[in-house]
Amino acid sequence: LDEALLAQAQAKLDNKTKPQGSLGLLEDMARRYAAITGDLTPKIGRKVIFTFAGDHGIVEEGVSLFPKEVTPQMVLNFLRGGAGVNVLARHAGAEVRVVDVGVDYDFEPTEGLIIKKIAKGTRNFAKGSAMTREEAVAAIEVGIALADRAKAEGIAMVGTGEMGIGNTSPSSAIIAAFAGCSVREVTHRGTGIGDQALEHKIKVIQAGLDLNRPNPEDPLDVLSKVGGLEIAGIAGLVLGAAANRIPVVVDGFISTAGALIACEMHPNVKEYIFAAHNSVEIGHQMMLQRIGARPILDLQLRLGEGTGAALAMGLIEAGVKVLNEMATFEEAGVASS
Amino acid sequence: LDEALLAQAQAKLDNKTKPQGSLGLLEDMARRYAAITGDLTPKIGRKVIFTFAGDHGIVEEGVSLFPKEVTPQMVLNFLRGGAGVNVLARHAGAEVRVVDVGVDYDFEPTEGLIIKKIAKGTRNFAKGSAMTREEAVAAIEVGIALADRAKAEGIAMVGTGEMGIGNTSPSSAIIAAFAGCSVREVTHRGTGIGDQALEHKIKVIQAGLDLNRPNPEDPLDVLSKVGGLEIAGIAGLVLGAAANRIPVVVDGFISTAGALIACEMHPNVKEYIFAAHNSVEIGHQMMLQRIGARPILDLQLRLGEGTGAALAMGLIEAGVKVLNEMATFEEAGVASS
Repeated sequence: LDEALLAQAQAKLDNKTKPQGSLGLLEDMARRYAAITGDLTPKIGRKVIFTFAGDHGIVEEGVSLFPKEVTPQMVLNFLRGGAGVNVLARHAGAEVRVVDVGVDYDFEPTEGLIIKKIAKGTRNFAKGSAMTREEAVAAIEVGIALADRAKAEGIAMVGTGEMGIGNTSPSSAIIAAFAGCSVREVTHRGTGIGDQALEHKIKVIQAGLDLNRPNPEDPLDVLSKVGGLEIAGIAGLVLGAAANRIPVVVDGFISTAGALIACEMHPNVKEYIFAAHNSVEIGHQMMLQRIGARPILDLQLRLGEGTGAALAMGLIEAGVKVLNEMATFEEAGVASS
Repeated sequence: LDEALLAQAQAKLDNKTKPQGSLGLLEDMARRYAAITGDLTPKIGRKVIFTFAGDHGIVEEGVSLFPKEVTPQMVLNFLRGGAGVNVLARHAGAEVRVVDVGVDYDFEPTEGLIIKKIAKGTRNFAKGSAMTREEAVAAIEVGIALADRAKAEGIAMVGTGEMGIGNTSPSSAIIAAFAGCSVREVTHRGTGIGDQALEHKIKVIQAGLDLNRPNPEDPLDVLSKVGGLEIAGIAGLVLGAAANRIPVVVDGFISTAGALIACEMHPNVKEYIFAAHNSVEIGHQMMLQRIGARPILDLQLRLGEGTGAALAMGLIEAGVKVLNEMATFEEAGVASS
C-alpha cells in the first residue's frame, strides 16, 4: 500500500471532531480502506459475499459430525435465503453469491448459484493427494475471475465464505504444513465433535501430512495435496481482489486457510485483507499471525459460510463513513486540544 | 429474566440450520433480547441513542486536554449531525437524542435537543460535593422519564452516550469508590493527556475521594459526591429501560459508570444491559466485571458520545434476525448431526 495515502487518510481523520485516535480500529480500517481503493473519500458501494462450496474426500475417515450430503443441502438453503450467511448479509446490505467449485451433487442452474465445478469434491488426503496441481490452479482461477467480474461490476467490497462438510480438516493441515507445528496445536472440533472424535481427527490429518509431505515453500503443493476446492477458490478471490484493489473481508478458519495460501503465494496480498473475526477453531490464530492480521470481531463464531465477514463488513463501512462524513474541528467550530 | 424464556429462545436457535452454538455471542445476545422483551420473535424496531451532556467543576483542576467550552460546542455538532455518534447512529439506523442535563451554556430550543438542565454543571469535587443528593435524584429522574417516553413511543432498543469535558475523572472516582481499589488502577488518559497530567489527575481524584468519603453502600451518595449530571441521567435511563423491558446498550467508560450506579441501586438491572465495547480507559474492565457484562466489541474506542453503542446495536440486531429469520433444519430439508 501507498504510505503517502495512508498518511493522508490519517491526517484527514485527525481533523475530525474527536480526540486523535479515539476511534481506534475504526480509524485503522478507514485508513487502510482508503489506501487500498486509492480514494480518500471511498465510495460506499455494493458488497458481495462469495460463498464457495466443495466436498472433501477426507469425510470418509469420519472426521465430521455431519454427513457429506449436508454440503448440497446447505447450498440449496443458501439459494433460498434461509442460512446464517443470508440473514447476516441481508442485515449488512450485502449480496450472497454461492459458487459450486466442487460439490459432489449436480445442481440445477439457479439464480444466485455460480456453477464452476472443477471436480466432484477432493480425494481423501489420508490416502493420497486431495487434488492434482491442475485442479488446484483451476479452482484458484475461478476465484480470480470472480474478483475481476466484481471489479467490472463496480462492486466496492467483497467477502469470503465457504460450505463444505469436513473442511476444517484440510484447513488444519494447511496451517500445520506452513507453520511446521503439530497437528494437535491447530485442530479443533469443527461443527462440534467430541473428545474421542477429535483424537481421531488429529490422527487422520497427521497421517495425511505424513503421506503427502506437502512442501511449505510451494503453496500450490500444500493446497493441492491437503487443501480443498473451496479453499482454492477463496485463495483466488483474495488474489484477484488485491490485484483489483478491492478490499476483501476474510471470514473464519477455512476462509483464512484460503487467504493464507494467497499470502504465501504473494505476501503483498496481506495489505488488502480485513480479517473478520477470531474463530473458535484453535488453528485460526496461528493463521492470522502468519498473515499479520488483527481480527475485527471476537464473537466466538464457528459457523463459517461468510457469517463473520457479513458482520465485519458493517464495521468496516462504519469506519469509512467516519472518514467521509464526520465534521472537522473547523467546520463544527469546536476548539481543538 | 425469565429462565423459561431464555431456554425457549435457545431451543429455537438450536433448530436453526447451523451447528448448535456456532453463532456464539450472537446467540447469547438473541436469547437475552428475547427474554428481556418477552418475545421469542422480537420486533426489529426503532432505536434511539440518548447522549447526555453535562459539565464538570473538576475541570478547573486541569484534568482534561480540552477546554470546558468544548461541551456545548460538541452538543451543537451533535445537533448538526457532524459528530462521531451521528455518523455511526445513521449507519446503524438509530436516532440520536441529545439531552442537556447539566451543560454550562444556554442552548436555544432546537430539534433533537432535550433541555432538562438540573444545574449548570457539577461543582468541583476536589473541593466539596459535586452535586446535592436532590440534584442527583432529579438527573436520574430525567433518564427514567426518557425511558418511559421511549416505551410509550414503541422504541425497541435504546443506547446510552455522553458528552462532558472532564467526565472520565468522576467515572474513575465512582469505580474506585465501589471497588475500594486505588485511583491509579482505574484512571487513564481520557481524551489523551500525557504522563505528567495523568499523575496530576490521579492526585486530584484521590483528593476528591479523601475529602468526600462517598459511602459505597449508598450509590446515591457516591453519585452525588463524586459523579456527574450526565452520569446520573444515564443511570436513570438504564433503570427506566430495565423497568420497561427495553434492551439498553451501554457505551464505554462514562456510560458504564452510569450503568454501574443503576446496578448498585438495583442488581436485577444487570440482566437488561448490553455492554457495547471494551474501552481503552483502564477502569472500564473493573466496572464491567462488577456488572457481570461481557463487552460485544473490542475496537480500542475511547470517544464516548454513544459511538460504541451505535456499533453494538447493529450486532445485537443481527443476533435477533438470526432468531427471527434463519430456516430450521426441517424447513430447509437439511440433515442434522
